[in-house]
Amino acid sequence: MNALTVIKIGGNVIDKPEALSRVLDAFAALEGDKILIHGGGKVATQVAEKLGIQTTMVEGRRITDRPMLDVVTMVYGGLVNKQIVAQLQARGTNAIGLTGADAHLVRSRKRAVGAIDYGYVGDIEAVDSGQFQQFLRQNLTPVFAPLTFDAEGNLLNTNADTMASAIALDLVAHNQVTLVYCFEKKGVLSDPSSDDSVIPELTPAAYADYRASGVINQGMIPKLDNAFRALERGVTRVIICHADELTAAVAQGAGTRLLPAA
Amino acid sequence: MNALTVIKIGGNVIDKPEALSRVLDAFAALEGDKILIHGGGKVATQVAEKLGIQTTMVEGRRITDRPMLDVVTMVYGGLVNKQIVAQLQARGTNAIGLTGADAHLVRSRKRAVGAIDYGYVGDIEAVDSGQFQQFLRQNLTPVFAPLTFDAEGNLLNTNADTMASAIALDLVAHNQVTLVYCFEKKGVLSDPSSDDSVIPELTPAAYADYRASGVINQGMIPKLDNAFRALERGVTRVIICHADELTAAVAQGAGTRLLPAA
Repeated sequence: MNALTVIKIGGNVIDKPEALSRVLDAFAALEGDKILIHGGGKVATQVAEKLGIQTTMVEGRRITDRPMLDVVTMVYGGLVNKQIVAQLQARGTNAIGLTGADAHLVRSRKRAVGAIDYGYVGDIEAVDSGQFQQFLRQNLTPVFAPLTFDAEGNLLNTNADTMASAIALDLVAHNQVTLVYCFEKKGVLSDPSSDDSVIPELTPAAYADYRASGVINQGMIPKLDNAFRALERGVTRVIICHADELTAAVAQGAGTRLLPAA
Repeated sequence: MNALTVIKIGGNVIDKPEALSRVLDAFAALEGDKILIHGGGKVATQVAEKLGIQTTMVEGRRITDRPMLDVVTMVYGGLVNKQIVAQLQARGTNAIGLTGADAHLVRSRKRAVGAIDYGYVGDIEAVDSGQFQQFLRQNLTPVFAPLTFDAEGNLLNTNADTMASAIALDLVAHNQVTLVYCFEKKGVLSDPSSDDSVIPELTPAAYADYRASGVINQGMIPKLDNAFRALERGVTRVIICHADELTAAVAQGAGTRLLPAA
């Protein structure tokens, strides 16, 4: 089977030009087929502020109202995405910048209004793996902004972690998929106060123990739940690492590798 | 040969949601392969103003300095492009939003600094017609923002009219290409004060006469020069029409059709 690496980079990388440049060097040098999914970063918040658009938070979560959707479409779908594409082209990687709406790659449904109206936020319904395969067979490297679309022609703000795992899962039929989450720590830590306490391999059982003891904290839980689910459903490898250690992590010399249930 | 329609829509359409919706209806209904190139519109100027970015004009031309490049990347490459893509998807057209940097489709060179430094403005050097053909064979409909890239990884602001003719010309080897420029008038007018004085067919000789007599004015001259050049170099049909008459114009019942030299 074909080897495919799906890599998610977060806002902490996007916000620092030098950090972004380093991770793009590493990404461009990776062998085999690859897909990059990027988050947003603080630029969207800064642009929104300057445009006088209020950030609405409900129970600690950002609401994507219509003006905020326009901002994330501009910043994630335009500025961040196209800058990454142009920088990858300069490194010899034939990148193509995409949202879920392009070539109907990732379709979603606007989240139903319950206790909270999240606004223009999408929950993924379908990934067009056939179209992805065609791009990969043409040696194109998809670069994804965290936006999807629905049947009514709305663009929808979509969680980048979820997008990465949905894409990875949809491509397991044709590829041996490695899914890498780059973030600001060197991996999952056994001691949150020590950056060097990276757990090299994490099983579901150990994860349950770390959760129970409170070592693995709230912010990590949705990420790890997502990651373990991907592993259960056919992704070959899931790795969590610092963006600066991408090359070593893919070669299994850094970060935390999640292991399936024994 | 395969029939391909390359359509450029300008800022006057982008700025009015109802006008844009009408032209997308017409575009989606067009038979055969098609490519859409969109201009910018006033949104970029408005966003720049709100962000406190000064628009620098030199001899009546807008300069694309670094902050302005970021604005056009956000607005043209993000907001306008992705909204059009999502709206075309809702109409059953499998659109893919692109800049020249994506899949290295349109590469340019940063304009040399002469008497005027235009900033991050690109003059087109190469169009990857093989990649275009692959997209068209996959029944994808490219939707282009007026941005290209150079070998150093810069994004470059690029004239949308020029981009449309460069793409059309590069695809004549494999297609019978119709190039349509939609703008705010019903066609080339023989009496600038009367919107109904559309010249149905315009030869290079008649164009020279209208220029000499001053009937065809400054703003139209670069557009028409561009258009006649495309015709000379192998584009089958060039049509200039109002965005609201796209369907009729492609069926040759509206607008101005340019004719080759006798």
